[in-house]
Amino acid sequence: MTIDEVSRPGRVAAPGEAISAEELALAARNHSLPLEALRWEITPPGLHYLLVHYDIPMVDADAWRLRVGGLVDAPLELDLAALRALPARSVRVTMECAGNGRARLEPRPVSQPWLVEAVGTAEWTGVRLRDVLDAAGVRPETVDVVFTGADHGIERGVEQDYQRALPLSEARRDDVLLAYAMNGAPLLPQHGFPLRLVVPGWYGMAHVKWLVGIEAIDREFDGFQHAVAYRMRQSPDDPGEPVTRIAPRALLVPPGHPDFMTRTRIIRPGPLTLEGRAWSGRAPVDRVEVSVDGGGTWIAADLEPIGEHPWAWRRFTAQWRAEPGSHVLTARAVTADGEAQPADQVWSRGGFANNATQRIDVLCTD
Amino acid sequence: MTIDEVSRPGRVAAPGEAISAEELALAARNHSLPLEALRWEITPPGLHYLLVHYDIPMVDADAWRLRVGGLVDAPLELDLAALRALPARSVRVTMECAGNGRARLEPRPVSQPWLVEAVGTAEWTGVRLRDVLDAAGVRPETVDVVFTGADHGIERGVEQDYQRALPLSEARRDDVLLAYAMNGAPLLPQHGFPLRLVVPGWYGMAHVKWLVGIEAIDREFDGFQHAVAYRMRQSPDDPGEPVTRIAPRALLVPPGHPDFMTRTRIIRPGPLTLEGRAWSGRAPVDRVEVSVDGGGTWIAADLEPIGEHPWAWRRFTAQWRAEPGSHVLTARAVTADGEAQPADQVWSRGGFANNATQRIDVLCTD
Repeated sequence: MTIDEVSRPGRVAAPGEAISAEELALAARNHSLPLEALRWEITPPGLHYLLVHYDIPMVDADAWRLRVGGLVDAPLELDLAALRALPARSVRVTMECAGNGRARLEPRPVSQPWLVEAVGTAEWTGVRLRDVLDAAGVRPETVDVVFTGADHGIERGVEQDYQRALPLSEARRDDVLLAYAMNGAPLLPQHGFPLRLVVPGWYGMAHVKWLVGIEAIDREFDGFQHAVAYRMRQSPDDPGEPVTRIAPRALLVPPGHPDFMTRTRIIRPGPLTLEGRAWSGRAPVDRVEVSVDGGGTWIAADLEPIGEHPWAWRRFTAQWRAEPGSHVLTARAVTADGEAQPADQVWSRGGFANNATQRIDVLCTD
Repeated sequence: MTIDEVSRPGRVAAPGEAISAEELALAARNHSLPLEALRWEITPPGLHYLLVHYDIPMVDADAWRLRVGGLVDAPLELDLAALRALPARSVRVTMECAGNGRARLEPRPVSQPWLVEAVGTAEWTGVRLRDVLDAAGVRPETVDVVFTGADHGIERGVEQDYQRALPLSEARRDDVLLAYAMNGAPLLPQHGFPLRLVVPGWYGMAHVKWLVGIEAIDREFDGFQHAVAYRMRQSPDDPGEPVTRIAPRALLVPPGHPDFMTRTRIIRPGPLTLEGRAWSGRAPVDRVEVSVDGGGTWIAADLEPIGEHPWAWRRFTAQWRAEPGSHVLTARAVTADGEAQPADQVWSRGGFANNATQRIDVLCTD
């Protein structure tokens, strides 16, 4: 066995190729939100989706330090107490994996095989990233700010600490946090204990967990997770566009009760309130539509107004009188910019940002 | 679409048949323990394995009641305050899904496709089931005690509330709890809020979540989860034996760091401490052995003594000097009764209790 056998290039499954043992092993490790948990405005601990590129590190909070360096006037080394002494700020965020929807693509990029459930909403508390950058005196020639996590592994032949960057303007946003708490409690190990980056509106890969380093650099960051992974490519030699903000999506709570194996829903005839949640990291969701005939016809859902939490999902409901027979339920979000969730897949070689509408099979019986 | 199409009989995959879309959907819903989380003695919230037969119910704790009836002198209806007023007791329990190891079977029973990670350890707090049975005055002719959860669904054509039973002698054990807390906090929704049964030593199907009813009956319970599911059958007409207590198992924390896609481990040459956890719901684990050549040769591991927590996993360690090249790591637990984990699969049509030893591929490079 060689490194090349252990860590292979990315690939796309052959047409009709079934889920591999390796994809199943990733699905077993990485947790998604069971769709009935869309009922909770704040996702209960343990039900928020989770993607871990390598292993969850076991971090000793006492020994842990955050180092801030690069193009700064005063490099910093901060412990948790120093961070907690800075002004605290909370933000409610719906976070989604960029790979959500990947396993529904045809052909299927071979990686973590998410269906539609890689999402969750949490209240994150921490300090503004901007306050820490200001304390270090980030120099004006800075282009990107690079974030390094304590997680370490190998990916397509490249051994690496997990690293992602933000352009300086994005890093200085008012609501970008270095978070040490999730829903009022210290971060869980799997969500980045003791500190993670939170970038409201961006897909999950930007929210670097187990943060140990921040570095200001004078160029665009070209690390693996930018230059190789997380790009919307159509072919291996396509440079592609970077994956950044979350595409609009609406998900229904599957109504009634399920069959164990097929997860098909059984409902009784009569009036029924359908409910779900919708979100977008781009323009805000302006309306949600629901269909009970697989997208043939649509009805307008009642959508909660944007309240105090512009980065969190919003609940929608729709009334339906179910009649005996088979139904296919789906929903779509449309943003204030007119971007609508498509019925067809959004395909890229990495399988990113596929926000094709959900499909719920329902059987209505007496 | 008809009920027979929605909810089909159990089946075994054809030889070599790949993981189906339905199995993948179950793997996405049901969470396993990422193996590096074996490092924690008590599994952090959200990393404990989770199997939900139907949906996670959203229970209103104020309206919730536990009803105790059947062959009792004084039927009870208890709210949470009444349960909390009874003497509290805690027990640390390693819980494992009876289907753990199913996806490694050949041929593979088609159901939740666990590999080896459907396990977790928690400290459960609640009241002794026996105290509640005594308060209700369970009559001596009682044979089984039946537990009903608030989760509802259809399985192989049978619509049902989830129900399991215990023989009266087992129900009256000193350490069988009606638990309202997990690791010192109220139960999480997915772990049975507001109340679940905890039966130390038994596979997870016995620990009924979202408990709403307890009924004493004068015969062996013959509900779906006893008479149809959770039996060790070799053929469809084999009556089989019931699945009860957890077979011995040892799992290693995969050393070094992983490749993202293959999860193969990369390590450096030199001395290394291998660590893991071992448990059994049958006779206690007496020793653990570790192999770095796929089970060709074995070395004795250092195993933590049984302490205050006889139902919890115990840590083991083994020293290894890694040399460049490929290695296959595995471990096996042997109980005080001489029951050893097998290298070969334990096959049944339902895919239960397959405690075949783990396999970790490791590449040691400079």
